Amino acid sequence: MSLLVDNIGELVTNDPSYGDDPLGILRDAAVVIEERRVAWLGPGAEAPAADDRVDAAGAAVLPGFVDSHSHVVFAGDRAAEFAARMAGEPYTGGGILTTVAATRAASDAELRATAGRLRAEALRQGTTTLEVKSGYGLTIADETRSLRIAFEVTPESTFLGAHLVPPEYADRPDDYVELVCGPMLTAAEPYARWVDVFCERGAFDADQSEAVLRAGMALGLAPRVHANQLGPGAGVQLAVALGAASADHCTHLSDQDIAALAGSDTVATLLPGVEFSTRSPYPDARRLLDAGATVALASDCNPGSSYTSSMPLCIALAVREMGMTAGEALWSATAGGARALRRDDVGTVRLGSRADLVLLDAPSYLHLAYRPGVPLVRQVIHNGVLM
Amino acid sequence: MSLLVDNIGELVTNDPSYGDDPLGILRDAAVVIEERRVAWLGPGAEAPAADDRVDAAGAAVLPGFVDSHSHVVFAGDRAAEFAARMAGEPYTGGGILTTVAATRAASDAELRATAGRLRAEALRQGTTTLEVKSGYGLTIADETRSLRIAFEVTPESTFLGAHLVPPEYADRPDDYVELVCGPMLTAAEPYARWVDVFCERGAFDADQSEAVLRAGMALGLAPRVHANQLGPGAGVQLAVALGAASADHCTHLSDQDIAALAGSDTVATLLPGVEFSTRSPYPDARRLLDAGATVALASDCNPGSSYTSSMPLCIALAVREMGMTAGEALWSATAGGARALRRDDVGTVRLGSRADLVLLDAPSYLHLAYRPGVPLVRQVIHNGVLM
Ligand SMILES: [Zn+2]
Ligand SMILES: [Zn+2]
Repeated sequence: MSLLVDNIGELVTNDPSYGDDPLGILRDAAVVIEERRVAWLGPGAEAPAADDRVDAAGAAVLPGFVDSHSHVVFAGDRAAEFAARMAGEPYTGGGILTTVAATRAASDAELRATAGRLRAEALRQGTTTLEVKSGYGLTIADETRSLRIAFEVTPESTFLGAHLVPPEYADRPDDYVELVCGPMLTAAEPYARWVDVFCERGAFDADQSEAVLRAGMALGLAPRVHANQLGPGAGVQLAVALGAASADHCTHLSDQDIAALAGSDTVATLLPGVEFSTRSPYPDARRLLDAGATVALASDCNPGSSYTSSMPLCIALAVREMGMTAGEALWSATAGGARALRRDDVGTVRLGSRADLVLLDAPSYLHLAYRPGVPLVRQVIHNGVLM
Repeated sequence: MSLLVDNIGELVTNDPSYGDDPLGILRDAAVVIEERRVAWLGPGAEAPAADDRVDAAGAAVLPGFVDSHSHVVFAGDRAAEFAARMAGEPYTGGGILTTVAATRAASDAELRATAGRLRAEALRQGTTTLEVKSGYGLTIADETRSLRIAFEVTPESTFLGAHLVPPEYADRPDDYVELVCGPMLTAAEPYARWVDVFCERGAFDADQSEAVLRAGMALGLAPRVHANQLGPGAGVQLAVALGAASADHCTHLSDQDIAALAGSDTVATLLPGVEFSTRSPYPDARRLLDAGATVALASDCNPGSSYTSSMPLCIALAVREMGMTAGEALWSATAGGARALRRDDVGTVRLGSRADLVLLDAPSYLHLAYRPGVPLVRQVIHNGVLM
């Protein structure tokens, strides 16, 4: 079975060999999908025949969004905490333990239902690749089942046993790091592609973070780091030193941090939903881009600091608040996310790419920023299948 | 035919006789609709039988949003202007004339298609009452047909012939005011409920604005005012002096302006989509609320300064940026909008209200701010009909 998508007014390929811009835009284009891959793309007038057809009716078509940072395996609701914070209480991060308690108390079925619901919600909004972390279990059993459930909804599953020191280890954090690096990682590793750590004052320091990442890497997991979110710190430098795919948050960066990112393959993944929902200053994407760093945008979907699954909102915020152009923001939410996951089969539309396409209710990708909050995703093709 | 909506986890009525809060929240509630009106509401266990049933499955149900300020009768697209502004050019408002030229050149069918599409888009997002203005025609014929088309999609249609002085009157603005106050108003009046004016430096001064509003009032139209958007000005005082239903924008207010609003029946309608999309400072809703003014939230949906139809986004922005609680923001987007339109049949859920209900994919209205950008409106009942 082949599928032709035609009458595409604006096709964003992210292949710079088309046009003169990183977005590689083709006008009046068509795409043919075969066996879940892009089998042909080019001018609509030259499109080959196919078994099925989707008429884009002149609208814009984009690569599916690649959301490289989420925490959708959890239980409980922190709407009341959010409302209190908005009414004036500062965000301290302590609220994570509320979710840990609820997650430990939840059944597998409850966790699976929430993760599946949020995965489906993200897909309806155009997210065709989603990374999902553990990190609300913080015991061997709870981290392992969280990762198993993450792995059910995505191959991009990340072990984040080192999210926070749980209360039962509060007076002996190094023992917790030892647990994470030893039996917890061993138990969880079969369900994980990535190892991550929350390198931040109040969570894990540079040495502890490095120990966790190296232990994961020794088991074959690839590193990524929660870095420099709440204040300056060692996270970004550690990420670059270990060749991490991504340093995430990057809100508080020194000139040295910027230079390190720009001189490396480590992507700076920015998560503006967090700053929106915690009323915090936004990271300076412009500074990163001007220095030559690769920037990704992701949702950080989680019940505490950013309970959004909307990549279009992340794009609109990046343009409003972070000095990105709409084109840079779209690239970062698609190709940038793919780089942050070291994937070359998603985030672009070219021959052989996985057939992940978003059809907008709009003539141009610009509308994702121009029309904030409006659900503009009309149809999603995921892995070759019209959803 | 009657319709029962039951299993409502949280019913926002905006009737303070329920509960101890302006939102008048009922838990485990049900609503019965008959002949397009709310015929019964109360505890689910006591609900009477009905011909049809919608199971809210524990979710939150709200009054439909009342969006009291939009400009959806227009032609053309200003995505490129938006992108340029975001890349650093300041917003001057001059771009309105681009839309005027495109609107004048468009056929009735094109204008009708755009207005209808945006009305439907708003309805899908829970907007069950929408005000729509003219103002991109600026000739007798073009204002009249714009209003006729507005009136096709809503009874809340507003004459805004005094949106801007059109280029052909640039050197004789008083002649344009005379045209507006005379033959233009006479021709457009049959299709309008309201008369509005853009009282702002660069548009119409206090005397011109007063002349337009009084001319409309003499024909039976009720006044509302675009006031104090781009800088301090006379708009708010004029609105209050004439007993206008609403002063809209209210971004730059003096203490006297605040006091005048607080001591009047004139609603302060805030339009945070504009500040979002023009990267301008937000109005201070907290200051208005603390002074005792009535605040409404609206989208200002238009192709230049705020091309969003999303009332949930307005709520999220009001909470993030304007010092409102989520409850205040929801009230302002429903009951507040109704007050800004002097309507007592919408914006609330009580016996006899028009049956406009929004069912969320969420257990609480708090999620509208807690989950920004996520399309949370699952179902809409408009005028008693399940959409
Ligand atoms: Zn995170
Ligand atoms: Zn307006």
